[in-house]
Amino acid sequence: MKLYKANILFTREKDRFEVIERGCVAVEDGRVVGVAVDESAFAADSVEAVIDYGDKLLIPAMCDMHVHAPQYRNQGIAMDLELIPWLNNYTFPEEAKYAEAAYAERMYRRFVRDLWRYGTMRTVAFATIHERSTRLLMNIFKEAGMGALVGKVDMDRNSSEALQTTVHDAVAANEALIAEFNVPGALVRPIITPRFIPSCSSAMLRECGRLAAKYSLPVQSHLSENPSEVEWVRELEPESRFYGDAYDRYGLFGQTPTVMAHCVYSGDDEIELMAKRGVLVAHCPTSNLNISSGMSPIRKFLDHGVKVGLGSDISGGHDLSIFRMMVYAVQVSKMHYQYSNKQSRFLSLSEVFWLATKSAGSFFGKVGSFEPGYEFDALVVDDSDLNFDGYTLPQRLERFIYLGDDRQIVHRYCRGEEVAEPKL
Amino acid sequence: MKLYKANILFTREKDRFEVIERGCVAVEDGRVVGVAVDESAFAADSVEAVIDYGDKLLIPAMCDMHVHAPQYRNQGIAMDLELIPWLNNYTFPEEAKYAEAAYAERMYRRFVRDLWRYGTMRTVAFATIHERSTRLLMNIFKEAGMGALVGKVDMDRNSSEALQTTVHDAVAANEALIAEFNVPGALVRPIITPRFIPSCSSAMLRECGRLAAKYSLPVQSHLSENPSEVEWVRELEPESRFYGDAYDRYGLFGQTPTVMAHCVYSGDDEIELMAKRGVLVAHCPTSNLNISSGMSPIRKFLDHGVKVGLGSDISGGHDLSIFRMMVYAVQVSKMHYQYSNKQSRFLSLSEVFWLATKSAGSFFGKVGSFEPGYEFDALVVDDSDLNFDGYTLPQRLERFIYLGDDRQIVHRYCRGEEVAEPKL
Repeated sequence: MKLYKANILFTREKDRFEVIERGCVAVEDGRVVGVAVDESAFAADSVEAVIDYGDKLLIPAMCDMHVHAPQYRNQGIAMDLELIPWLNNYTFPEEAKYAEAAYAERMYRRFVRDLWRYGTMRTVAFATIHERSTRLLMNIFKEAGMGALVGKVDMDRNSSEALQTTVHDAVAANEALIAEFNVPGALVRPIITPRFIPSCSSAMLRECGRLAAKYSLPVQSHLSENPSEVEWVRELEPESRFYGDAYDRYGLFGQTPTVMAHCVYSGDDEIELMAKRGVLVAHCPTSNLNISSGMSPIRKFLDHGVKVGLGSDISGGHDLSIFRMMVYAVQVSKMHYQYSNKQSRFLSLSEVFWLATKSAGSFFGKVGSFEPGYEFDALVVDDSDLNFDGYTLPQRLERFIYLGDDRQIVHRYCRGEEVAEPKL
Repeated sequence: MKLYKANILFTREKDRFEVIERGCVAVEDGRVVGVAVDESAFAADSVEAVIDYGDKLLIPAMCDMHVHAPQYRNQGIAMDLELIPWLNNYTFPEEAKYAEAAYAERMYRRFVRDLWRYGTMRTVAFATIHERSTRLLMNIFKEAGMGALVGKVDMDRNSSEALQTTVHDAVAANEALIAEFNVPGALVRPIITPRFIPSCSSAMLRECGRLAAKYSLPVQSHLSENPSEVEWVRELEPESRFYGDAYDRYGLFGQTPTVMAHCVYSGDDEIELMAKRGVLVAHCPTSNLNISSGMSPIRKFLDHGVKVGLGSDISGGHDLSIFRMMVYAVQVSKMHYQYSNKQSRFLSLSEVFWLATKSAGSFFGKVGSFEPGYEFDALVVDDSDLNFDGYTLPQRLERFIYLGDDRQIVHRYCRGEEVAEPKL
């Protein structure tokens, strides 16, 4: 058993931080044994090492619940378009480049290195349609020792020729990746990834649902991001009662663990079904702002018992930092509050921290908290440059979240192992 | 004459960037002589030095049009309140500490150092009611060689006892600072600063207007930030037609150069008067989000010929970087676009860059552009870590604005002089 000593902050429940000044977390076999105010709480003869981080902060590592790895190069450019022209002019042409493995490797290594920088130790990622470069991305995550659910993207209509596959090829590529990576307990595993309803024929969606069920694999896709997209889905799947119902008919809406990105325009029926099926919302506030999507009703999801995590959504989003996503999630909820005549209470800091850690982490097992039995995913934060005037521990954390960046993150742990900077 | 060579980007007009690949800016006596594609454009015998920044970017330095220097310590904390409780519980108690010069000096030195870090070379700042610490702040700016208009705050009602002065004392303190700092052409000068209508009696506002007129000094205050504040002003100044009209009646609305922060709820009459009087809006998008104020109608201001700049508004805003303000200004305008049924076209990158440089800079004279006659306020940006795949120059600038931070800013110039890191 190892003991990590520092100022410990985490969220067992969304409404408040657990704060233990100069406390310690006991870790064995990659999992938290317990948290205590001092090391005497643990039998001395079972402690093999004490790692003392002094006055630094020790917090759970971040989870990014929605990101397009192959849009890494487009991060921070072309922020002047709406969803559909942006897909056609920037996103699809860039993703087509991932047919070439050398390009994919160069970009994916940078992408994973940057996730590391910002303390994201668990990621739910879209790759592209390409089996080979998807395998590369999965191996780069494995090599780094960082957790990821990586989806080979399936799509066979309404996009550029270069990014469409046949259903047959999509299934074959998925089967190959599943055979290689679907190892119980592995840090890096496949996730079934129909791009979104408009990109997938009924046959493709049916096969995606079948694969998810056959291999008990999780599912990710996009949902109700944009009014014109919602309308388009209504036309494409006229028998569905609402967008989410279309996924549901193919077994892609909570039949296995499912994360749906955006959910800005989810109506009451959709929200009810998401709660019932345990579908997790990947809330991507920067993306929603950058692509003029709108404000996702996160308070409503929470009030209805829908699970929510945060996503960077590179490159609709421009920032890989999940800490920055927390700031934006609070801000967007405050805008919601203002424009709902103060009916929709805004999110607190502990709530968005909980979204990014324990709530999101539930998608990976027991991840995102320092409660006993949780995998030890953690960040050590040296905020000494921000802490020049006797702030309280919650204020220090708040200042790091609002003002800090990768410079303050000095150690990163995933499943109990310290994660070194991934090689480019 | 000195020549600065680099990739040059600036905005002569708001709708597009001027881009000169490996060009040069000629500077003499602190002012731009001209910009050219190569040095042969300038007579060799008049060139005393060529400073070659290679493949780096050379852009105008930033202007922060609204910031509360004494709220520096509160940056990034207490982001869970609305305007009035936030003022009473956090802001006013913190500002009261600036009665003590030693505390003021310690915080103000950090504040100015941080402005420097983020490339802000011109600042319009609120200090506190205290003459002594206001003088300290002005001297710290002077010592740093950075431009600033600094306001001793005037307020005599509706706030904590510790932050109210008599009109007599306020006038005396202003006169003392004016006598010392109101030097024509000085980089650091006073600005008349009634906090806002609710904090100032009629007598105080009248004296503020008188001082501005007597010494031809600029004016700053807050305007139409929050619906309940607008309503309060209506009660306090019942004879005024609208909030801005209340300032106008005291000679504080464009009679001398005037900057008004926020302007989220300015109606048509107010906008019309602002255009007529040349009142500049300090748009503070992060603050507006953090304090749940709302979305300032920046497109409408521009369409009506009202001048606009960007402000960090620490500590309602949490981020001192004006580059980050550009990102937020685009995002808020996109939200406006979405919720105005796409009637209010969102701001482009060149527009927000122009707001933060040439448009804001007009408040300081000829500042914020590389056109002939402009003061040479400039930043050298080494974006090599962000430029790993052959981006165009406008894309490099966009990526620096969206993804970069102080690490990429490697040289800073104000009025032709390189500005070294201010001492703490």
